Amino acid sequence: MLFEKIKSPGIAHISYLIGDGNEAIVVDPRRDIDIYLEKAVEEGYKITKIFETHRNEDYIIGSTELKAKTGAEIWHADEMLDYQYGKPVEDGQEFMVGRLKFEAMHTPGHTPGSMSYILYGYEGDPWMVFTGDALFAGDVGRIDFLGEENLEKTGSWLYDSIFNKILPLGDEVILCPAHGAGSVCASAISDREWTTLGIERKLNPKLQVDSKEEFIELHGEMLEYPPYFENMEASNLTGGDPLASYEKPAALSPDEFAEAMEDDDTYVLDVRMEVSYASAHVPGSISIPLQNLPSFVGWFIPVGAKVLLVTEGEYPEKAIKHLYRTGYDDILGYLSGGIISWHMAGKKSESVNTVTVDKLCTLLDTEPEDRFILDIRSEDEVESEGEIKDAENIHLTQLPEHYDELPEDVPLYIFCGSGLRSMTAASLLQNEGFINQRVVLGGLIAWNSTTCPIV
Amino acid sequence: MLFEKIKSPGIAHISYLIGDGNEAIVVDPRRDIDIYLEKAVEEGYKITKIFETHRNEDYIIGSTELKAKTGAEIWHADEMLDYQYGKPVEDGQEFMVGRLKFEAMHTPGHTPGSMSYILYGYEGDPWMVFTGDALFAGDVGRIDFLGEENLEKTGSWLYDSIFNKILPLGDEVILCPAHGAGSVCASAISDREWTTLGIERKLNPKLQVDSKEEFIELHGEMLEYPPYFENMEASNLTGGDPLASYEKPAALSPDEFAEAMEDDDTYVLDVRMEVSYASAHVPGSISIPLQNLPSFVGWFIPVGAKVLLVTEGEYPEKAIKHLYRTGYDDILGYLSGGIISWHMAGKKSESVNTVTVDKLCTLLDTEPEDRFILDIRSEDEVESEGEIKDAENIHLTQLPEHYDELPEDVPLYIFCGSGLRSMTAASLLQNEGFINQRVVLGGLIAWNSTTCPIV
Amino acid sequence: MLFEKIKSPGIAHISYLIGDGNEAIVVDPRRDIDIYLEKAVEEGYKITKIFETHRNEDYIIGSTELKAKTGAEIWHADEMLDYQYGKPVEDGQEFMVGRLKFEAMHTPGHTPGSMSYILYGYEGDPWMVFTGDALFAGDVGRIDFLGEENLEKTGSWLYDSIFNKILPLGDEVILCPAHGAGSVCASAISDREWTTLGIERKLNPKLQVDSKEEFIELHGEMLEYPPYFENMEASNLTGGDPLASYEKPAALSPDEFAEAMEDDDTYVLDVRMEVSYASAHVPGSISIPLQNLPSFVGWFIPVGAKVLLVTEGEYPEKAIKHLYRTGYDDILGYLSGGIISWHMAGKKSESVNTVTVDKLCTLLDTEPEDRFILDIRSEDEVESEGEIKDAENIHLTQLPEHYDELPEDVPLYIFCGSGLRSMTAASLLQNEGFINQRVVLGGLIAWNSTTCPIV
Amino acid sequence: MLFEKIKSPGIAHISYLIGDGNEAIVVDPRRDIDIYLEKAVEEGYKITKIFETHRNEDYIIGSTELKAKTGAEIWHADEMLDYQYGKPVEDGQEFMVGRLKFEAMHTPGHTPGSMSYILYGYEGDPWMVFTGDALFAGDVGRIDFLGEENLEKTGSWLYDSIFNKILPLGDEVILCPAHGAGSVCASAISDREWTTLGIERKLNPKLQVDSKEEFIELHGEMLEYPPYFENMEASNLTGGDPLASYEKPAALSPDEFAEAMEDDDTYVLDVRMEVSYASAHVPGSISIPLQNLPSFVGWFIPVGAKVLLVTEGEYPEKAIKHLYRTGYDDILGYLSGGIISWHMAGKKSESVNTVTVDKLCTLLDTEPEDRFILDIRSEDEVESEGEIKDAENIHLTQLPEHYDELPEDVPLYIFCGSGLRSMTAASLLQNEGFINQRVVLGGLIAWNSTTCPIV
Repeated sequence: MLFEKIKSPGIAHISYLIGDGNEAIVVDPRRDIDIYLEKAVEEGYKITKIFETHRNEDYIIGSTELKAKTGAEIWHADEMLDYQYGKPVEDGQEFMVGRLKFEAMHTPGHTPGSMSYILYGYEGDPWMVFTGDALFAGDVGRIDFLGEENLEKTGSWLYDSIFNKILPLGDEVILCPAHGAGSVCASAISDREWTTLGIERKLNPKLQVDSKEEFIELHGEMLEYPPYFENMEASNLTGGDPLASYEKPAALSPDEFAEAMEDDDTYVLDVRMEVSYASAHVPGSISIPLQNLPSFVGWFIPVGAKVLLVTEGEYPEKAIKHLYRTGYDDILGYLSGGIISWHMAGKKSESVNTVTVDKLCTLLDTEPEDRFILDIRSEDEVESEGEIKDAENIHLTQLPEHYDELPEDVPLYIFCGSGLRSMTAASLLQNEGFINQRVVLGGLIAWNSTTCPIV
Repeated sequence: MLFEKIKSPGIAHISYLIGDGNEAIVVDPRRDIDIYLEKAVEEGYKITKIFETHRNEDYIIGSTELKAKTGAEIWHADEMLDYQYGKPVEDGQEFMVGRLKFEAMHTPGHTPGSMSYILYGYEGDPWMVFTGDALFAGDVGRIDFLGEENLEKTGSWLYDSIFNKILPLGDEVILCPAHGAGSVCASAISDREWTTLGIERKLNPKLQVDSKEEFIELHGEMLEYPPYFENMEASNLTGGDPLASYEKPAALSPDEFAEAMEDDDTYVLDVRMEVSYASAHVPGSISIPLQNLPSFVGWFIPVGAKVLLVTEGEYPEKAIKHLYRTGYDDILGYLSGGIISWHMAGKKSESVNTVTVDKLCTLLDTEPEDRFILDIRSEDEVESEGEIKDAENIHLTQLPEHYDELPEDVPLYIFCGSGLRSMTAASLLQNEGFINQRVVLGGLIAWNSTTCPIV
Repeated sequence: MLFEKIKSPGIAHISYLIGDGNEAIVVDPRRDIDIYLEKAVEEGYKITKIFETHRNEDYIIGSTELKAKTGAEIWHADEMLDYQYGKPVEDGQEFMVGRLKFEAMHTPGHTPGSMSYILYGYEGDPWMVFTGDALFAGDVGRIDFLGEENLEKTGSWLYDSIFNKILPLGDEVILCPAHGAGSVCASAISDREWTTLGIERKLNPKLQVDSKEEFIELHGEMLEYPPYFENMEASNLTGGDPLASYEKPAALSPDEFAEAMEDDDTYVLDVRMEVSYASAHVPGSISIPLQNLPSFVGWFIPVGAKVLLVTEGEYPEKAIKHLYRTGYDDILGYLSGGIISWHMAGKKSESVNTVTVDKLCTLLDTEPEDRFILDIRSEDEVESEGEIKDAENIHLTQLPEHYDELPEDVPLYIFCGSGLRSMTAASLLQNEGFINQRVVLGGLIAWNSTTCPIV
Repeated sequence: MLFEKIKSPGIAHISYLIGDGNEAIVVDPRRDIDIYLEKAVEEGYKITKIFETHRNEDYIIGSTELKAKTGAEIWHADEMLDYQYGKPVEDGQEFMVGRLKFEAMHTPGHTPGSMSYILYGYEGDPWMVFTGDALFAGDVGRIDFLGEENLEKTGSWLYDSIFNKILPLGDEVILCPAHGAGSVCASAISDREWTTLGIERKLNPKLQVDSKEEFIELHGEMLEYPPYFENMEASNLTGGDPLASYEKPAALSPDEFAEAMEDDDTYVLDVRMEVSYASAHVPGSISIPLQNLPSFVGWFIPVGAKVLLVTEGEYPEKAIKHLYRTGYDDILGYLSGGIISWHMAGKKSESVNTVTVDKLCTLLDTEPEDRFILDIRSEDEVESEGEIKDAENIHLTQLPEHYDELPEDVPLYIFCGSGLRSMTAASLLQNEGFINQRVVLGGLIAWNSTTCPIV
């Protein structure tokens, strides 16, 4: 038997490859499908079916890519949508894979047509359940895609899906959701690598309710909706272009890079760590350190834009994967040799002021009163981790709509958890013409580890 | 968080690597430890602790190898034994790894000092349990190591360990045993990749009992004890030689190979598929196809012997790993270029007669009455899959003690499930001077798929 | 500077990747282009140019595949042909790659428009020369593609190309040909991994001549022309389908395999070693052991046929590469689990008789006089390695045209160098209904290493 | 035949693996020997001999490591030294490897007992020559190890070795030296990946002489001698500790890292790019960007010291290899999570001022006169690439002996080629208490690409 859990970091997406005999299926494949071919096809399994749990909005699903290389059938959830490929799956439909049985179960809420897939063991009892974005470790799927006016309806659906369909499968059943911690599809997925229905019943905060009403009350909230979601939704109905047809992003010399920048549709994305960007960066570039790329690129760069990458000099393999997974298909190349080659070619660079917390303590004491402390963490973080005294809170994703609330002529200290997102904010501000921003290195966590009397 | 399940095929051993923060632990490491270093150390985790669930008898544990490369502490179960490395762990002892807590729990039965390790989740509830050889998917650990006279005692221990300690942790707890299907440490481990205590409570055949007595009655049996177990037990108290100190087995020319064979302590092990061996093999060699190597090498080649390998020509990477894992440390090399180079050097080879089931049907009809049908499957297989009419059943592992019961002058048809083990039997018989043996290709499964009137 | 020599075993093809600055070129890329992307693009080089030395006939060139992933320009030799992609290169045309200069030099002979490319070093002197199929280590390119009537013309061209253009570059210049030992593009390429013009001038047997006439006399011969050459020539003008668009050949169960075999256009190709095939094989299959695949598949399986593969059970990665490189694009799959699964499914198999040389000695003494010894080596081999007494010589590639010269009712002993090609012959004969063929294991080399009085 | 050129970047070392039949040899193996095992042993070659060209001073040779894994014989040059392993090779001694012949040839100069090894081709003519540090592409070996007083003698030796022994082998012979461009064993090795004796005879600047006297005159100079050479020389006589016995350097939390720093013998080595270090670094650390590590670590960190590494957060695989290759065996670990985790733990960091060339232009115009321009390039670079106006030249390696010549109270602009070495200088100065140093980003190359009127 083959059971592989394929994690795609960044989008925190999880797909599953399950095989028995010489047949295998994939639940919610990602777009770069090599891993399924390596782990299944090259190991002697024929991938014959692809199960989608719902029409995804946060990443491009790899169903058509995988079908092209394996001939597998694609089975869709959300069959009311206008899919241009694959076949709709029905509630209760059963599939055999070797000796294993899968059964589709309609579990609406996150989307109206969301499907879970129950895997029955050799003895015929429910063994695992693939719940897509219905139920996660420590959280449940967001239900706000149909708008605020439908929260009650979608909440009611999800309650029924979880409490009346999924949980009754049994405490001992293993839960296989489509996302892990860090996903934008739920606000608080736990860092629990493996879980069971029983563990979720006991520990999942969203399930600690006594009634459907309480569940809706607790969970019925509107979450942020990054602009790129719309493109993903459209792409996931048509199937998209095959990745194999793209030219491989190449190393560009400083001159080629500078020339490519001139196009108005082109964005320069600097994926280096925050201190590297602070020291020197290509003017006009946006700082999104690699580990934050999947979470924030969708807010600040429109899908369809041309992208130029800046790294420490290496081939941006991970960044390219992240971008492709979220639909940024037009990657022109990256700066050959990194920023040092930029300098050696005599090009101009810019920097961002930074401050460590120990120096900040001193500054706050000695500098004149006039300053602005900008906290760009999310509301959730502010609530759970505490406010910063005298700070103005504007979530990073909302920053572009609030530039005019920021002062231009006094020191502007930017705080986030660690300093990474602050650098993104600082780069955005710099591109808007601000010059007094200073990133607090180490962010709030650093701040909390020192004993500075003021904040 | 890091959670890796490391499977060692062949011995069907499972070890676990769990990390949180920048710290990690390994439960029951194998001897070739590169995988732990790659997945933990190179990913930024420091391996600080090694947990052993019991003194192993079926493979060489990698604790001292891993300690040498990481500095990790080794924690022993079975503390009554005379360990020459590591520290004994106590029932109830707790360990923190990042935010995760592990607790040792004495679960005797398989061995007197067997330990399980409970992993508590971030919320403090039992999340997973590492049971070593106490409880498996679909089976429980064998309890016959202290002899037939102690079966009642060890059975009682194991019953209490499982029913009064492990299962009460909760149906929703994930079970992480030390072996999967195919292990010699239990007779019938299920091919269930992931399981929970609840699934085992419901489905594990050994747990469907109403009393301790019934459990002992059902499970209290003496199983086969391969000769190499004794060496493993001894090695696992001293820690063994580091693998890194061994010369890498090299390609030997036919002449070098032939010369190395002359030593009386040297065994030639042919790991090719059964039909290759049948066609032509080095005289005196033993056929154990690669996938059967871990199960049978311990029966037919003494630990300490010098081993020469025959492959299809390729470097015997997997065979070498299997041999090292089970304590065969003196691998002299392999036949460079495979059997074709042997032939090209003018060396003599031998062959074994084979017969396909369709031809066997005809033969049984047309040949004279006198023949011997030898079924070398285990008793368990005979019981569960059915007898072969007119066949004599001698389990492959017991064959060397029954040579004198076999006729030398009539056709001797050898059956197993598929034909692989039959070839091992045929090679042993050939080395004993038998000449009439014929291996039934496809074995019983082939036989069952045809309609031949006789058997 | 980047210099990579990429060898494609089997077709014994060599391509070259040369880079300087952040730019790189490829000479004669192969069709599976991953290696160029890994070694160049991921290392920071942009592949900007592809140089073809001639229109190839023995493999599918990867120019269009590589252009699709890199945007590189394709430069053609043999510009008189009707290319549907790329641009023609001119004699004397120069190209800069970083600080390095390449110059095209017309070196006809193998084809009318063959080009060599001179690489000049940093100081401006000739450093290396990429000669395609004009000059090899130990041999020169074949000149028989324009027919026997043109041998004098093509020989004259090649003489001038080598003696008046290539060799005058200087003894110290490094020679980079398009093929190594084992290619079908020349009869006797040496196993000399690296060479120089001076070494070839001194040691290449074809260059030890005093005049153009002597050169043509020595080298003007018609060689074998495998049927697939014609397809390659056509494909190499159009550019062919991208490999990325193909479904990955998958594991087929015995039933699926048997069903796929029923189609008349389907060929079963068994790439296992000769002794495995001898022991048991799928009826109707052709034996071509993997290492011989590139040399012989083109003779016995028509391009365009559907291919089913039999291996020892593993994914046939190398066989698939070989087949794709030589234009066999319709690979349906391979037998899941190998021949043992075939047997276990109750399918019928066949075998081929073999004989080792020591047994053959005895047989030749004791068997009745009537027998047929078939030597299937090439004329060249017979000349250089000696005849076999009483043997009939028919080169393997010509065997299908000589079936009627072979006896059906006496023992037919087949000899080649090692036994591999003999098994191919035996499989062809078996498919024609012959039953008395016996393959001599170890072949002539084995024979020569024994002392058997007869032959 | 097997021919592999193994390049070890950084130390610009080249070793060679040559095999024929099933035997192989290695010339001058490096200490991390996995690559020889992968490319030879796992491909079916038995490594039977190791040839050393001389007692090395710039890296630890891997002969004893390789012997331990293969049983190969070690053959030493410089037999007058007190080797504690291996056997001395004699001038003229011959070795067969399959069909290939190697012959040792005494070529003193770089060291008194240096050996070259001639490889003869299948036809018996010289094919390649492995010259160690006698002759390189574009340069010859340094001859100053016996002191200035012996330059004439060693120069005379080397002249004879090259002109009377190596070059006479023939222009067409392929040259295989022990170093490529960037080595400390010669001042000006060319970036010529492959070369021949003929190319060197024509183009190597050191060979363009009319007499031995001219050769000595041209080449007889004392070069820098990094302190670690002495340790290498000693290690290479005893054979050193096996790498396999070392604990793998592990991720250290900021607290663990800080604690480990407290030991006086401990050096913190920051291998990030110069701009990252400039922005924020661990106080007291030395900046040596990874690509410069092999060239400079030997000057600023004593062999035997304990080393702590700072990276962008990743496992410092390449840095560890470089350090082991040059004898830094006591690597305690690296900062887990990189500098951001340092900040988040509330630890203090420091920064270095940088300036881009365009800003420098302005500064030079507008700042007060008083400043110091420090050019830390080598004399060779200054000569070949030009002086900087008003700059003081002190080679980086000599900086520690000239601290007192530097002003503490005026701006101190540091120039090198690119800015990398300047950051090393700045870090050294910072550790000495200097505070006014400013690194010119892009260095002289950037400067040359701008049009700034002053310098």
